[in-house]
Amino acid sequence: MTTPTLSPGRLDADTVRESVDVVLEDFLAAKARTTPQHHLPYLSGLLRDFLSGGKRIRPLLCVTGWQAVGNGEDTEAVFRVAACLEMFHAFALIHDDVMDDSDTRRGRPTIHRTLAALCAADRRPDQIERFGVGGAVLLGDLALTWSDELLHSAGLTPAQFNAVLPLLSEMRTEVMLGQYLDLQATGELTDDIEATLTVIRYKTAKYTIERPLHVGAAIAGAGPDAMEAISAYALPLGEAFQLRDDLLGVYGDPESTGKSQLDDLRAGKNTTLIALALRGSDSVQAARLRSLIGNPLLDERDAATVQEIFAATTAREAVEQMIDDRRTQALRALDDAPFTADAVHALKQIARMATVRNS
Amino acid sequence: MTTPTLSPGRLDADTVRESVDVVLEDFLAAKARTTPQHHLPYLSGLLRDFLSGGKRIRPLLCVTGWQAVGNGEDTEAVFRVAACLEMFHAFALIHDDVMDDSDTRRGRPTIHRTLAALCAADRRPDQIERFGVGGAVLLGDLALTWSDELLHSAGLTPAQFNAVLPLLSEMRTEVMLGQYLDLQATGELTDDIEATLTVIRYKTAKYTIERPLHVGAAIAGAGPDAMEAISAYALPLGEAFQLRDDLLGVYGDPESTGKSQLDDLRAGKNTTLIALALRGSDSVQAARLRSLIGNPLLDERDAATVQEIFAATTAREAVEQMIDDRRTQALRALDDAPFTADAVHALKQIARMATVRNS
Repeated sequence: MTTPTLSPGRLDADTVRESVDVVLEDFLAAKARTTPQHHLPYLSGLLRDFLSGGKRIRPLLCVTGWQAVGNGEDTEAVFRVAACLEMFHAFALIHDDVMDDSDTRRGRPTIHRTLAALCAADRRPDQIERFGVGGAVLLGDLALTWSDELLHSAGLTPAQFNAVLPLLSEMRTEVMLGQYLDLQATGELTDDIEATLTVIRYKTAKYTIERPLHVGAAIAGAGPDAMEAISAYALPLGEAFQLRDDLLGVYGDPESTGKSQLDDLRAGKNTTLIALALRGSDSVQAARLRSLIGNPLLDERDAATVQEIFAATTAREAVEQMIDDRRTQALRALDDAPFTADAVHALKQIARMATVRNS
Repeated sequence: MTTPTLSPGRLDADTVRESVDVVLEDFLAAKARTTPQHHLPYLSGLLRDFLSGGKRIRPLLCVTGWQAVGNGEDTEAVFRVAACLEMFHAFALIHDDVMDDSDTRRGRPTIHRTLAALCAADRRPDQIERFGVGGAVLLGDLALTWSDELLHSAGLTPAQFNAVLPLLSEMRTEVMLGQYLDLQATGELTDDIEATLTVIRYKTAKYTIERPLHVGAAIAGAGPDAMEAISAYALPLGEAFQLRDDLLGVYGDPESTGKSQLDDLRAGKNTTLIALALRGSDSVQAARLRSLIGNPLLDERDAATVQEIFAATTAREAVEQMIDDRRTQALRALDDAPFTADAVHALKQIARMATVRNS
């Protein structure tokens, strides 16, 4: 397997994507070859298609973290670890879609819907649904197991492996806890803004931004100062990233986001946006929000009503302000960070991409 | 953390269980301490209770495999790897119960039922069920992640780690494929005996018997001959183990098995027992089996009807005969196996335990 090389001096998101994609495709093709019987080619193909829709944010951050510390030569190992993060993310999303019972992901049917559609039509509806859910749980489990294999076959030195492993362990436990918090909070709207920010910190800020940067930096032998500087940038940016996501869920163009504006509202996820709106609502508005959000039958007109209350309570502007504040804080953290100039440039670009985006 | 030591010369199932339990309890207690906030103590406690009901078959086999090769001194590392297998098994069972929508496991409510019962009673029924399923998927994911941590903190030498890792990777993929095959076969009864044996081979023979023995043997530095001798013993025994399980599902005493005699029949799992009965049925009997097995409303009287057809078609005796043949084959494989005498003694005991049991 050959991947394009990338000198530590140059960062290019397309090169990262391309290199990580080569690793993932070669890995899945090898899986399908070594166990050709018993559906493995089908399952690995399903995973390949699922992976192909990703934005590769975590791999990009992993490579950027590695470049930030600036003394790495082992491009191949970094791309493989970056691919391991992307494979782990496929696991997280597939299970997340089961938990949320989502219909679509990245503009396509979710894995459990795809598998349910494969099921023989003469089975009972509960059997069809169970096949979809069971198959998706298993495919997610396979992706988690295979993300491990990508790590172990990355060619890290023992010192690199020992630096990376605790970070990955932490990351896994953190994201699962974040998901559990999120699950617990779903179905009962809260006006507790801090509580929504705690979920964001675990589920997104640490998982999506901080840990991938840490992992890349650890491969390059980063010390505690670089790790702390990464956190100072990553945590506020990660919060901003999720706040933007929450806004896109309600106001985004379905063509760009790949999902309907109704999904998030129907799912009844507790977001900071909703918590702010509840804080700013009078009792009539609050009762309206509580009856509409989380209602699986919510329609376009209901969504418009919710948007009106978000506007009237200035919740939308408040979230935009929170995004701005956090981006500024993240950028300021770069001022004194012990990073290479190229990485600082890249991290500034990433801060813009993460907070000003339409998908 | 201290565990009882075990000399390579002596094998004692109680010592193995006790030592593995200490590893698991210390590990979970440490998890609850390091992340005291956000439900981790609750989740790790739930996992501890779940783990406490296990029979520790895989740890026992892992330690026996290590003793079979006979030149190991590193008791502590073996117990930690054995605990890693048990933690992995907790993951597999928790997800299995979600996939099968089972109510009970080991005589207690399954994890998704336990979590659903925790959910605020004022939520909608679909939200309560989703919380149970989502939480159980997450707790299984945590167990999988933590089984990895147990492996990495086992104190294996690099050579031991490199010998064990590919076996564990294989084991994971194998059991997931076995589960997928099982899931695909559920809901449509088959008289294809070979197909049911293929599922058994992946889901049980390799996963429950062969791989734990291989892993233990690999820690002790086993060569290819010992590995092959293990497979020659493990694969027939593993098939016999699952065939016994299938019989217990239909004929076992619920007091001993911890589950109702109706569960397996209602779930409509394709077993060799059912395939044999369909082969031996006339068209009336076959239609009866197809209408009853897999029916979630199947009651005690229906179960008695199924049992009568199993008797009339001699399917039950045929399965008993298959168990006998396979146990004989497994025991014969021990005759020339390059194992220590103590291990051969233990493996004979295990062969009896696995095939003549009531739970």
